[in-house]
Amino acid sequence: MTRDELKALIRTVPDFPAPGIQFRDITTLIADGRGLAASIDHMAQMAPPDVAAVAGIEARGFIFGTALATRLGLGFVPVRKAGKLPVETIAMDYALEYAEARIEIDPTLVSAGERVLLVDDLVATGGTALAAAQLLRQAGAVCDHALFLVDLPELGGADRLRDAGITTASLMEFAGH
Amino acid sequence: MTRDELKALIRTVPDFPAPGIQFRDITTLIADGRGLAASIDHMAQMAPPDVAAVAGIEARGFIFGTALATRLGLGFVPVRKAGKLPVETIAMDYALEYAEARIEIDPTLVSAGERVLLVDDLVATGGTALAAAQLLRQAGAVCDHALFLVDLPELGGADRLRDAGITTASLMEFAGH
Repeated sequence: MTRDELKALIRTVPDFPAPGIQFRDITTLIADGRGLAASIDHMAQMAPPDVAAVAGIEARGFIFGTALATRLGLGFVPVRKAGKLPVETIAMDYALEYAEARIEIDPTLVSAGERVLLVDDLVATGGTALAAAQLLRQAGAVCDHALFLVDLPELGGADRLRDAGITTASLMEFAGH
Repeated sequence: MTRDELKALIRTVPDFPAPGIQFRDITTLIADGRGLAASIDHMAQMAPPDVAAVAGIEARGFIFGTALATRLGLGFVPVRKAGKLPVETIAMDYALEYAEARIEIDPTLVSAGERVLLVDDLVATGGTALAAAQLLRQAGAVCDHALFLVDLPELGGADRLRDAGITTASLMEFAGH
């Protein structure tokens, strides 16, 4: 299944979660068995070399991140919303497209000096991904690559991540936001 | 990797999220690449026949559900917390071990008459899984099998699901709660 065919499986929902926003909904892609498998195939081919683990951002980043980690035979590090992890964490507050939020990781799940590939379903302004990368670096990981299913380039997330030393790749782009 | 070896990768955190609760933390297992892959191997072998799709419950059910769906070449139906899905949903309120909650699905992601395998990381009282199964049935799916990484049998979840016509299986059990 080509990237264009995968893009055609994304559902666009107008005015969600706020007026004027075109929400790119991945659930119609993942509910398609061929679409889900092909997405993970493409992502596996796009993974950089020498990756030791995959990190995914709650909740939709768990979907692609875990499937990709399993395909690559790597471990998965969950980047969670505040209060979900049962152990001592490191946390970061950040602004996202529509609100403010806090994410956390368990730093003991990351080995110092190992390359962790950051995965999420979609990059918009890049705020969540940047906060996640900073947390992974704070825990000692090398986090210099991020992989997304969807990029909304007009929102500048990929540029912002590049400025922080993070190479990004995505399977598809959508104009507008 | 055997089930006993996988069980040894689970971290037990005392008194989380409430005093007296032994929290069975799966993050140490999924952060281990061999552990994650072996868990999905075991789950794939335990999947019932004639499954058309896998449903997973937000957020930890996304981890095992999507990796399993990808392995089986099936689509994945996310069972989400309230307000996350951008389209018209069907919802169910239920009591869980420590609080009350609402879950939702997009019924258009389920085909009438198809068998959907329900997946989550852990079954305790079974309240969340039962609500998810009821939603999937309301959408027209056949939901008569559920698969978990961890079962806490003393909390009765598997019994409660069996009484609702749902056959359960798990990779490991822990005594107590």
